[in-house]
Amino acid sequence: MTTSTALLLADLTGVAVFAASGASAAVAKRLDLFGVILVGVVAALGGGIFRDLVIDEVPPLAFGDWRYAAAAAITAAAVFWLHPQLVRLRTAVLVLDAAGLALFTVTGTLKALDAHTPAVGACMIGMLTAIGGGLARDLLTGEIPVVLRREIYALAALAGSIVVALLVQYGQATPVPLSAAAAFVFLLRLVSLRRRWSAPVATLRPPGTGTRGPQG
Amino acid sequence: MTTSTALLLADLTGVAVFAASGASAAVAKRLDLFGVILVGVVAALGGGIFRDLVIDEVPPLAFGDWRYAAAAAITAAAVFWLHPQLVRLRTAVLVLDAAGLALFTVTGTLKALDAHTPAVGACMIGMLTAIGGGLARDLLTGEIPVVLRREIYALAALAGSIVVALLVQYGQATPVPLSAAAAFVFLLRLVSLRRRWSAPVATLRPPGTGTRGPQG
Amino acid sequence: MTTSTALLLADLTGVAVFAASGASAAVAKRLDLFGVILVGVVAALGGGIFRDLVIDEVPPLAFGDWRYAAAAAITAAAVFWLHPQLVRLRTAVLVLDAAGLALFTVTGTLKALDAHTPAVGACMIGMLTAIGGGLARDLLTGEIPVVLRREIYALAALAGSIVVALLVQYGQATPVPLSAAAAFVFLLRLVSLRRRWSAPVATLRPPGTGTRGPQG
Repeated sequence: MTTSTALLLADLTGVAVFAASGASAAVAKRLDLFGVILVGVVAALGGGIFRDLVIDEVPPLAFGDWRYAAAAAITAAAVFWLHPQLVRLRTAVLVLDAAGLALFTVTGTLKALDAHTPAVGACMIGMLTAIGGGLARDLLTGEIPVVLRREIYALAALAGSIVVALLVQYGQATPVPLSAAAAFVFLLRLVSLRRRWSAPVATLRPPGTGTRGPQG
Repeated sequence: MTTSTALLLADLTGVAVFAASGASAAVAKRLDLFGVILVGVVAALGGGIFRDLVIDEVPPLAFGDWRYAAAAAITAAAVFWLHPQLVRLRTAVLVLDAAGLALFTVTGTLKALDAHTPAVGACMIGMLTAIGGGLARDLLTGEIPVVLRREIYALAALAGSIVVALLVQYGQATPVPLSAAAAFVFLLRLVSLRRRWSAPVATLRPPGTGTRGPQG
Repeated sequence: MTTSTALLLADLTGVAVFAASGASAAVAKRLDLFGVILVGVVAALGGGIFRDLVIDEVPPLAFGDWRYAAAAAITAAAVFWLHPQLVRLRTAVLVLDAAGLALFTVTGTLKALDAHTPAVGACMIGMLTAIGGGLARDLLTGEIPVVLRREIYALAALAGSIVVALLVQYGQATPVPLSAAAAFVFLLRLVSLRRRWSAPVATLRPPGTGTRGPQG
């Protein structure tokens, strides 16, 4: 198996995983079959479409290679039909979601660097590729994005993208170190989920003194 | 009237129709005149801007041809002043909205194919062009997007875009078959509204066993 | 100090100001440190990313020049740690926010005209650059965008962008008139805040006769 075949397979796995997460959220919102597929497809492809727009790879891969849309739609439809079983497999979904986050971090950062984006920008693009699909999913289903809640999520992606940028900088962007970077993101996300690690929250001295209350 | 003039007129009609739908939603949310115009313009032009970004036609037509913005803004302002009458004409709005959906499906898919997007991607772009404005409208006004609710809406657009892609594939993309494709989307949407057709909804066995509850 | 240095400094000031507004909203929503930084960065850079995408300047400046991301992230982190003091300085934040709106209106419109966008489109892009970050901030934190509420906000930006387009049209786009245009937006926004100026709101005759109720 060549490197590019490995990357394609890994990419499609990431697409399927995010499609499953979007479809699960849509089922919980009582959307119909087509709504479930649509949210699944947007969650799976949204991050990559954003990435390709900002690095000027048009049309975005999600529209240029039918296998991406097919992987997303078929997975979302499968979740629609199978979701009672899937609920029991919630741990598996979280694990796969972490795998997708890890993968899109690595491929997104690499693609941005290949397009000659400076390193800081490439790290931001890598992180946004990884978290973009979940963001779109939560906006569509009317939730405050999960990425903004109290778990290490985007931070794991950002850390991974910095590792990838350093590997490229020092000429070490070969399969083994890149896989290690993906594994690092994957494990950081899983461990933080398990141990409930999170970033600190600001203390609001007298309650409700924020500049805008919860109801705005 | 040449084909391109016909397409332009039809396009501007679609813009006006979606502007009216966005403005109506904004009036119902008690936004002020400028908010009503802004939501109307975003609903009218949002889908086309997305389409032009992914097929790399920059600046997007919405910014490059002043007639688009003018048609959207004037229509939205008219709705602001006339809306009590418009409420009585709600059926007319739904009919016109279906016409806009039909039109943007056909023009969006054609434009994506013209830009050498592969067929599956072009169908997705055509559908997203048609539903994009309504999506933006609902996100701005804090609603779960109507496209995700229980009616045939995006599905009608997707079916229409597949018809258009097949017509192009077999060299039949002439005005009469393309108009028939638009009529097909239009009627499919109207009949499904009238008969309350919808895609199936997943059955959640014990209530609340979704992976994320309604309050997330 | 050259004109371009002045513009860069002003631009970074605008970025910092919008980062502060996004971070404040995120603190009020009880997001954690990373969520606060993320919302701050998106609010600071969102408008400019949209502008650069539609005028095909890729990668967008926000990804191509690390100082933009750094200014946004550092300001947001500072708000996270200092926000109890900041709350008392709420007036200062509103003033700075108006300054950012004024600045991004001028630079956004100029950049769009430089990219050969027709005047009407350039005014729309200038306005959207100025209001885009606040829009993204409110969508992320689950609010109806402030730009849609009853204050002169987007209208001030639109008026300023028209002034800039006229200056360019008549060959007067030199630093002094451009600064005057920015001051005009700044003062229009502040005076409308102070005097509670707003655009009119549609009168709904019998309550609840809008086409869609508040709960949709």
